[in-house]
Amino acid sequence: MIAKTMMAAVVRQFGEPLAIESVPVPVPGPGELLVKVIACGVCHTDLHAADGDWPVKPSPPFIPGHEVAGVVAVLGPGVTDFGEGDPVGIAWLHDACMRCEYCEAGWETLCEHQHDTGYSCDGGFAEYVIASAAFTARLPANVDFAQIAPILCAGVTTYKGLKETEARPGEWVAISGIGGLGHVAIQYAKAMGLKIVALDVTPEKLALALTTGADVAIDARSPEAIADVLKATNGGAHGVLVTAVSPPAFSQALHMVRRKGTVALVGLPPGEFPTPIFDVVLKRITLRGSIVGTRRDLDEAIAFAVDGNVKAEITKAPLSDINSIFAKLKAGKIEGRIVLDFTMP
Amino acid sequence: MIAKTMMAAVVRQFGEPLAIESVPVPVPGPGELLVKVIACGVCHTDLHAADGDWPVKPSPPFIPGHEVAGVVAVLGPGVTDFGEGDPVGIAWLHDACMRCEYCEAGWETLCEHQHDTGYSCDGGFAEYVIASAAFTARLPANVDFAQIAPILCAGVTTYKGLKETEARPGEWVAISGIGGLGHVAIQYAKAMGLKIVALDVTPEKLALALTTGADVAIDARSPEAIADVLKATNGGAHGVLVTAVSPPAFSQALHMVRRKGTVALVGLPPGEFPTPIFDVVLKRITLRGSIVGTRRDLDEAIAFAVDGNVKAEITKAPLSDINSIFAKLKAGKIEGRIVLDFTMP
Amino acid sequence: MIAKTMMAAVVRQFGEPLAIESVPVPVPGPGELLVKVIACGVCHTDLHAADGDWPVKPSPPFIPGHEVAGVVAVLGPGVTDFGEGDPVGIAWLHDACMRCEYCEAGWETLCEHQHDTGYSCDGGFAEYVIASAAFTARLPANVDFAQIAPILCAGVTTYKGLKETEARPGEWVAISGIGGLGHVAIQYAKAMGLKIVALDVTPEKLALALTTGADVAIDARSPEAIADVLKATNGGAHGVLVTAVSPPAFSQALHMVRRKGTVALVGLPPGEFPTPIFDVVLKRITLRGSIVGTRRDLDEAIAFAVDGNVKAEITKAPLSDINSIFAKLKAGKIEGRIVLDFTMP
Amino acid sequence: MIAKTMMAAVVRQFGEPLAIESVPVPVPGPGELLVKVIACGVCHTDLHAADGDWPVKPSPPFIPGHEVAGVVAVLGPGVTDFGEGDPVGIAWLHDACMRCEYCEAGWETLCEHQHDTGYSCDGGFAEYVIASAAFTARLPANVDFAQIAPILCAGVTTYKGLKETEARPGEWVAISGIGGLGHVAIQYAKAMGLKIVALDVTPEKLALALTTGADVAIDARSPEAIADVLKATNGGAHGVLVTAVSPPAFSQALHMVRRKGTVALVGLPPGEFPTPIFDVVLKRITLRGSIVGTRRDLDEAIAFAVDGNVKAEITKAPLSDINSIFAKLKAGKIEGRIVLDFTMP
Ligand SMILES: [Zn+2]
Ligand SMILES: [Zn+2]
Ligand SMILES: [Zn+2]
Ligand SMILES: [Zn+2]
Ligand SMILES: [Zn+2]
Ligand SMILES: [Zn+2]
Ligand SMILES: [Zn+2]
Ligand SMILES: [Zn+2]
Repeated sequence: MIAKTMMAAVVRQFGEPLAIESVPVPVPGPGELLVKVIACGVCHTDLHAADGDWPVKPSPPFIPGHEVAGVVAVLGPGVTDFGEGDPVGIAWLHDACMRCEYCEAGWETLCEHQHDTGYSCDGGFAEYVIASAAFTARLPANVDFAQIAPILCAGVTTYKGLKETEARPGEWVAISGIGGLGHVAIQYAKAMGLKIVALDVTPEKLALALTTGADVAIDARSPEAIADVLKATNGGAHGVLVTAVSPPAFSQALHMVRRKGTVALVGLPPGEFPTPIFDVVLKRITLRGSIVGTRRDLDEAIAFAVDGNVKAEITKAPLSDINSIFAKLKAGKIEGRIVLDFTMP
Repeated sequence: MIAKTMMAAVVRQFGEPLAIESVPVPVPGPGELLVKVIACGVCHTDLHAADGDWPVKPSPPFIPGHEVAGVVAVLGPGVTDFGEGDPVGIAWLHDACMRCEYCEAGWETLCEHQHDTGYSCDGGFAEYVIASAAFTARLPANVDFAQIAPILCAGVTTYKGLKETEARPGEWVAISGIGGLGHVAIQYAKAMGLKIVALDVTPEKLALALTTGADVAIDARSPEAIADVLKATNGGAHGVLVTAVSPPAFSQALHMVRRKGTVALVGLPPGEFPTPIFDVVLKRITLRGSIVGTRRDLDEAIAFAVDGNVKAEITKAPLSDINSIFAKLKAGKIEGRIVLDFTMP
Repeated sequence: MIAKTMMAAVVRQFGEPLAIESVPVPVPGPGELLVKVIACGVCHTDLHAADGDWPVKPSPPFIPGHEVAGVVAVLGPGVTDFGEGDPVGIAWLHDACMRCEYCEAGWETLCEHQHDTGYSCDGGFAEYVIASAAFTARLPANVDFAQIAPILCAGVTTYKGLKETEARPGEWVAISGIGGLGHVAIQYAKAMGLKIVALDVTPEKLALALTTGADVAIDARSPEAIADVLKATNGGAHGVLVTAVSPPAFSQALHMVRRKGTVALVGLPPGEFPTPIFDVVLKRITLRGSIVGTRRDLDEAIAFAVDGNVKAEITKAPLSDINSIFAKLKAGKIEGRIVLDFTMP
Repeated sequence: MIAKTMMAAVVRQFGEPLAIESVPVPVPGPGELLVKVIACGVCHTDLHAADGDWPVKPSPPFIPGHEVAGVVAVLGPGVTDFGEGDPVGIAWLHDACMRCEYCEAGWETLCEHQHDTGYSCDGGFAEYVIASAAFTARLPANVDFAQIAPILCAGVTTYKGLKETEARPGEWVAISGIGGLGHVAIQYAKAMGLKIVALDVTPEKLALALTTGADVAIDARSPEAIADVLKATNGGAHGVLVTAVSPPAFSQALHMVRRKGTVALVGLPPGEFPTPIFDVVLKRITLRGSIVGTRRDLDEAIAFAVDGNVKAEITKAPLSDINSIFAKLKAGKIEGRIVLDFTMP
């Protein structure tokens, strides 16, 4: 028997604290699932959503949260490929049209008709959430819900970003920024047979890089940083993943990448970065944006985690902490990933 | 019997007029050819060379010219795969090490040990020029030397740039800038099965675009230019080739490219361009520099021209006109391509 | 007002003549369309279906036909992206699960849960047919229904097969068999910028090859056939498309393909072909099967036809002729493609 | 001071025992190196060479051996990029033309003008051997010569074969045959992030498969073998590497491969294999031959070994044992790889 109401963290006005309040439990429509949330990771995007930072904004009131791990509570009409109690994951891409040129080609992340969890649809900062069955990931029976949650955004985003660098096993990848995304990226890179040079600016982050599998960790603020990367990689990294696209990180990335290499960007800060034409042309450098991952990418990203190759550093917290978590996130004071744990009192 | 001296246009000091003077005919070393120049195209790069515009500069005195069509005059020691009188083409890449990771992978254009014709080696603004046999292109017996000359840089550069957009037959490519490079690019694109939208700013260039094969020609300065491209291509061009990387052309390119599309840059102006992060990431846009073409690309580019698919608009001139040609080039007053014709008196 | 009954050609027993009879008009379910058939091409697969030739057989009674062009007559529940009267095309792939690893990657032709038009679902040898809206192709307003019909199987199959050879513009493709598939393949190859050598065994077919765009046409039975292909292509075709996978055609294909080239097979005769290990390994030859095309491939194939690049040679016939058409098809006596024209009396 | 004569194992007549005899030390020509052999692996190809098994035969007398590790003894005229004493590796590809379409594209293994070590040139079953500098691999200062030797053919061949399956990290590869090639292939696959199912027919080989990194090892003779592979891989392996292309192994490979997967063949037995058309087409299976590896592949293969990721199981033997080694090899009685150790008395 499903409750009629649930606790949720609701954005009522951009830039204001979220309201922790009781709201009606939604009812799944055709092709949808009602999922009981067990854990939900907190992502920078949730903060951007709550602050209304981006050109296309969500419409308050809405519930953020798009790293949702839980179990199926109710099947909407016509859903036959899930059962009640199935462990599932819900990611950023709530649904897509399945008929446009992008959807048809397996690039539904580019669908212009998509809906996004915790943005244009209510998300997982709540006890229950609606999912689209066709876009819901299956999780194994014995999954650790809190542990898998960050894989559903941080994991798939960095995994896809690494694929987009086109670096092959045995080649070097530089990972810039060893925060919530970067420390997961290192583990994916290692499982993909890549050699890894990690860059960040604090001793703690650099130590985390080495313990999660980086071959080399370099202080990005050192005047020797670029020279050190070129030396460690014998000429530059074949791929560079920039997890925090700040202009200095981006500029550095362009100097660390090998001729014919690719710089992939996975962050979404506002603004522009200056790109030097001469280097990009003469060295045949490729720059590429990458946004979350497709259903295929998500299944692959989950499989790496389930196989034990990737494990996010998480700290659990109750839903009621969300506003203080957001404050810390904004201040850059969070190591690894915070996961809202709905089994906490 | 080869003459001991030859006429050449020599850069004696950056930024000064070239000296048209008599210099010794060079002697080919092992693996080299002495080539009698019949025609040599004039490229913007020659102007950059003569003005010392780029970070790595040539060392005066030197002879520019890297769109060289001629016949083999003398075989250097050990050369067995060419014969005297063979029609040949010499391009920008004079030679490369053949042993580095780029050369081994068929990307000798990225070799850090390369020498470049008319830049770090003397080029074709002279009656004779030295070529490296292993990097010399074969031309067919009945070739029109003046006509093929621009293919050796303008041709291969745009052909490679189009390949680098990864646009497939039946897809749309936008070609920005219909000058010496662009009007050739249109013809390659057409022969490659692409649909073409051309952009430039004068009625003459737009007319040239249509006569050389563009499906649509759009005034790049029109406030509706981007909207018109999106409409003509039903959502944006799959590939964009920017032949003149001016910041406005580049910015426009990013708004004309389809989601998941690629913008390829083939020009080498100094400076930087501002790249909007949000669009690049959300639309998974790829930006890529492209520099001339490999030996394979060159052979392919020549084959398209020999088959009659690509023909540059050329104006012939004698070597002695080089300084006035440079002046016009600098002023942007040249349509198509100027070719130095050594059969002219 | 839709009629209650319709004329159809029904397979009642494998290997027996089809019954031309009146059957109930089907009613579209959720997500389905009822389409009024205007034209339907006749494909070898229809014959295999009617004869029960393949390991997995259809279940009589059923209606063959999978090159269906018509207009939407009735929208099933929930269908909003089509309107009554819309011109549409229905191909082999009636539907697929949209959720397996193949569907998610844009390879729904490999879906193990697919249904196939005129095989596991009733097809277009009838006045009306049911289509799955998500798998129905849109046709332009002024389409010639009979002319577009063969594109929906012969067209997309050969177009996809050519893509699968990975031959690039300017390279050579050999097309073996210039029948209903081959003469369409030639036109796609030409529009894709490929050079074409065509092989068949009659003067009529070879003449058709040349008029549809082949650069060279060679009698496949000539003892010089392979040598002639090697000479015409200067070393072998980069891609070979075998439209009729007879063992001799296949063996010949392996000797006509260039080193590093690809042989694509698109036919489905029963049996095995002997593959010579030494050549395949030493020359790094790739063999690849290809089956119809995805929704993306289909849209692309249609676009080439709509743009006027591809036009099948068709002969129109009434539905009542189906048994004599099958007889001729079995005897190999059909040139081009037969299209059932439902506007004929 | 180099000796004038050296001991070598010479093929004087096909099918006869090799003569262990004193022959003159060769003198390196321009661009060549004289290499003092320290270790040389024994490959099946050496046996095929000595028996004259293949269509294009070597010309006795000749010295086999193409897994050569040693040090540079003498530089030929013009060689400047090696020094005496440099540790080097010599593989199958003695040299290639560097100018054909294959060489230019980084596919020199397909060059029709290549020479092959121990086949068309004398090889490493001798105290000294001639190498072409441009095709000689560099080894690190502290290399274990006997240990690296098998990497130069068995290693690079299987590494390239795995690349040619196009299986990506996280996907499944089936490796059929866990002998001298297969047990090395498993280690490469693991380092490349692949999941591995190994097949062979003895408990010893299956045990070796598991200790070298296979996730699953299956008895290829079991009637359940195919079903077991399909189950372990959840639908078939994305790539299959067939190291011993026997017709049964090949047939089995086609049933173990996933839809859209690739079967790569790296062996060179005489004869043909029967290929089932229906499966290949309906499942879009790709078959591909693969022959040794390019210079790039070789450097990459060596790097994996130097990094400690791949280590062949070797047994050292003196040159004088070569005939008994060949006898055992012919009888299939060799586990791992035999390496001739020239430091043995
Ligand atoms: Zn869509
Ligand atoms: Zn996120
Ligand atoms: Zn190089
Ligand atoms: Zn140029
Ligand atoms: Zn068909
Ligand atoms: Zn499916
Ligand atoms: Zn070659
Ligand atoms: Zn070998």
